[in-house]
Amino acid sequence: MLNAADAGFAEHLAGLLPDGTLRDVSAGYLTEPRSRWAGVGGVLALPRTTDEVAVIVRACAAARVGIVPWGGGTGLVGGQVMPGGALPVVLSLERMAAVRGIWPDEGVLAVEAGMVLASVQDAARAAGRLFPLSLASEGSARIGGLLATNAGGLNVLRYGNARDLCLGIEAVLPDGSVLRGLKRLRKDNTGYDLRHLLIGAEGTLGVITAASLRLYPIPAQVVTALLVVPGPEAALRLLGLAQGIVPGMVQAFELIARQGLEFLAEVVPEVAVPLTADWQVLVEFGLPARMEAEAVMAEFYEAASEAGLVLDGVIAASEAQRAGLWRVRENLPEGNRRIGAVSSHDISLPLGAVAELIARAGAALARLGDWRINCFGHLGDGNLHYNVFPVRGRTRADHEGDREAVKRCVHDLVDSLGGSVSAEHGIGRLKVGDLERYGDPAKLAAMRAIKAALDPAGIMNPGAVLR
Amino acid sequence: MLNAADAGFAEHLAGLLPDGTLRDVSAGYLTEPRSRWAGVGGVLALPRTTDEVAVIVRACAAARVGIVPWGGGTGLVGGQVMPGGALPVVLSLERMAAVRGIWPDEGVLAVEAGMVLASVQDAARAAGRLFPLSLASEGSARIGGLLATNAGGLNVLRYGNARDLCLGIEAVLPDGSVLRGLKRLRKDNTGYDLRHLLIGAEGTLGVITAASLRLYPIPAQVVTALLVVPGPEAALRLLGLAQGIVPGMVQAFELIARQGLEFLAEVVPEVAVPLTADWQVLVEFGLPARMEAEAVMAEFYEAASEAGLVLDGVIAASEAQRAGLWRVRENLPEGNRRIGAVSSHDISLPLGAVAELIARAGAALARLGDWRINCFGHLGDGNLHYNVFPVRGRTRADHEGDREAVKRCVHDLVDSLGGSVSAEHGIGRLKVGDLERYGDPAKLAAMRAIKAALDPAGIMNPGAVLR
Repeated sequence: MLNAADAGFAEHLAGLLPDGTLRDVSAGYLTEPRSRWAGVGGVLALPRTTDEVAVIVRACAAARVGIVPWGGGTGLVGGQVMPGGALPVVLSLERMAAVRGIWPDEGVLAVEAGMVLASVQDAARAAGRLFPLSLASEGSARIGGLLATNAGGLNVLRYGNARDLCLGIEAVLPDGSVLRGLKRLRKDNTGYDLRHLLIGAEGTLGVITAASLRLYPIPAQVVTALLVVPGPEAALRLLGLAQGIVPGMVQAFELIARQGLEFLAEVVPEVAVPLTADWQVLVEFGLPARMEAEAVMAEFYEAASEAGLVLDGVIAASEAQRAGLWRVRENLPEGNRRIGAVSSHDISLPLGAVAELIARAGAALARLGDWRINCFGHLGDGNLHYNVFPVRGRTRADHEGDREAVKRCVHDLVDSLGGSVSAEHGIGRLKVGDLERYGDPAKLAAMRAIKAALDPAGIMNPGAVLR
Repeated sequence: MLNAADAGFAEHLAGLLPDGTLRDVSAGYLTEPRSRWAGVGGVLALPRTTDEVAVIVRACAAARVGIVPWGGGTGLVGGQVMPGGALPVVLSLERMAAVRGIWPDEGVLAVEAGMVLASVQDAARAAGRLFPLSLASEGSARIGGLLATNAGGLNVLRYGNARDLCLGIEAVLPDGSVLRGLKRLRKDNTGYDLRHLLIGAEGTLGVITAASLRLYPIPAQVVTALLVVPGPEAALRLLGLAQGIVPGMVQAFELIARQGLEFLAEVVPEVAVPLTADWQVLVEFGLPARMEAEAVMAEFYEAASEAGLVLDGVIAASEAQRAGLWRVRENLPEGNRRIGAVSSHDISLPLGAVAELIARAGAALARLGDWRINCFGHLGDGNLHYNVFPVRGRTRADHEGDREAVKRCVHDLVDSLGGSVSAEHGIGRLKVGDLERYGDPAKLAAMRAIKAALDPAGIMNPGAVLR
């Protein structure tokens, strides 16, 4: 059992740290964007250095006090709030937001974990490079949390998930020791890959304090189109066509359903929607200077039309038009939020099973009631945000009792098709039960053994990922 | 302490398995390419299914008998042979070499661990796709071993290491449980990434039995050149120039030193060497159909010449010429083998430190004696094979007593420059001491804790990676 970070412990901890490192936990650190949980916390720690993080973790380990690591607070599965139990230390990395080093010629940027993603992108761009991780919360999400949750987003198709963008990490392990792995190597086969173990562990195996990140050349030309497709299966064939023409240069391939556009019209009417159809995809190529971007897109469009994979479309002719197309995609979550989902699902599937999932889930859910379904997302990665809403005139509150059945219906189907019930958001506290239900038993047992080995007292983010 | 796989245990094990699964251990399973170690083994197990692997591992766990997993036997650090101690079971996956499934449109190929890399490449190519892992031993190395050691090779620059090419694995864990993670998902954030933990663990945390692999489009055009460069630093600036012109399409960037060419002339004279210079790079671009390959290479060559980064060169004008250029690069290890190295080093460095390492290591080694140094390899990855040879008229046997000092000299310098003493070959048994010496103490402690948690009896590849 853990002990509380009570006044006595806070006083003890304060004595080990510079003045001002500890504060009372203000309300902002106890909430999460979906308002499913309210967190608890005994004291807020705002360290400025890795050594201070280590002091905090060592003190907590000695006193068996829990630690909830806090990045930007944007996680969607409750990994950043502990809703009960012995009061933990809330450990925010926000004061550790410095650039440790940048090597533009090597394509490496080393930053502290508290740096906001948008600032990381800016630092890369100022050096003439691209840090490709990009997602809705980039203005507040911090790189430590993004790595801890192996964030995905809009450019995974071309550049990979957060883990693929990380060459090395520095972290404080649950015993307070400091893992000094801030390398900037492309190859390093010296023992177990603890970087990949900590990435995606959601703060349950340690606190990431810094990371060396991969930078890429900024594409010389970007060409973007919003295309009407006959359906999800055709959309995936369209992706194959695109990859054949510009292999490795398709940087976004986002599915948009009519329902999402109707939500925008209903609750975010300020967003102009250039086309409305049952299914659309937002396609973006990032091309080198040597290719003729317009000709490439024209060739793609023509081939796709001939093959019956595109029925209509808009190709952005200016940066403003491109921004307009993206505004549609980027506002889909806001539309969802304003409507209020009964249940949201961050799922991934083998690409070949995406169309089947969409068809079968709709049919299965219809047997449970009447819904509006907004199925959208990172189709190129097989990652759908399959969100279920009340029909007009009803609210999510009317369906409080249905949520579990809806979720089960979708997740069972995903599981039966070889998919994942958490594609990019993680497990947090929301999906602990799902992991137990759908996770491979051998994997779960190994995870528990690793957790017990590295964090025997269970102080790191108690209750997240593993019960 | 472990028990021997003696006659009694072999008889017990035979009773659990189909006839013919067990054999005496023939000599081929007890050797490794560098002839540094001769292995021992009590019985050879040749399972045909994952369940049979699980039966073997469970029986070994119960009896505390060691297991040495055997792939293609091509590893260069002795991971595949146990040179002493209680006789282990040698577990070869060679009979598990089937394709489990192929999804060309998804870019996924699932194979059993015993499949030889060349066969994996062939299976992909037959489906119109590329499996990009490529290295000297591809005709005998098996995919399970390549994943267990996170193999690198010639195309890492563009496509990543073995771990980056793997979407999921099936493995038997040290307790005999089967990790069923043969997914074909691009995104899956459901708990700790055991795939990445097992990849690179060199068989010490379990036996990989199958893997789902990423396939890529076959580049429509490949253009290859052998270019004379002023030195390693210019070579890296040349790489930057190439990445600017064809970002993400540079698929090989291999450094070749004059010494390597002289070795070829001396001991592999049948290989024609088109150019001789102090430093050369073999550059290869894989381009889509839409680019004009010759014009791109010409632009690159001209820009590089103008910048003083290229002094001379040969651009392959036919597939035969391309093969000829590659023959030079591919025969460098054979030249080395025939000369006989005092000490070979598989090192990686931050790209910005490569030139410094080369300059300083040469100077430092000169203080230890007279050598011929062949420094070559995957420059684009910061990965050098920095191999030290006797001068003409002397042999490696004359330097038996110098090996340790030479190795220490190179590795100390690599470590001081933030590099790795095992870039792509792994730790095996050769570098256990190096890992202890140069490894981060927190990392080593965590590795030991994980090993103890997952393999408490220490049966999996005893003595490899960790003492």
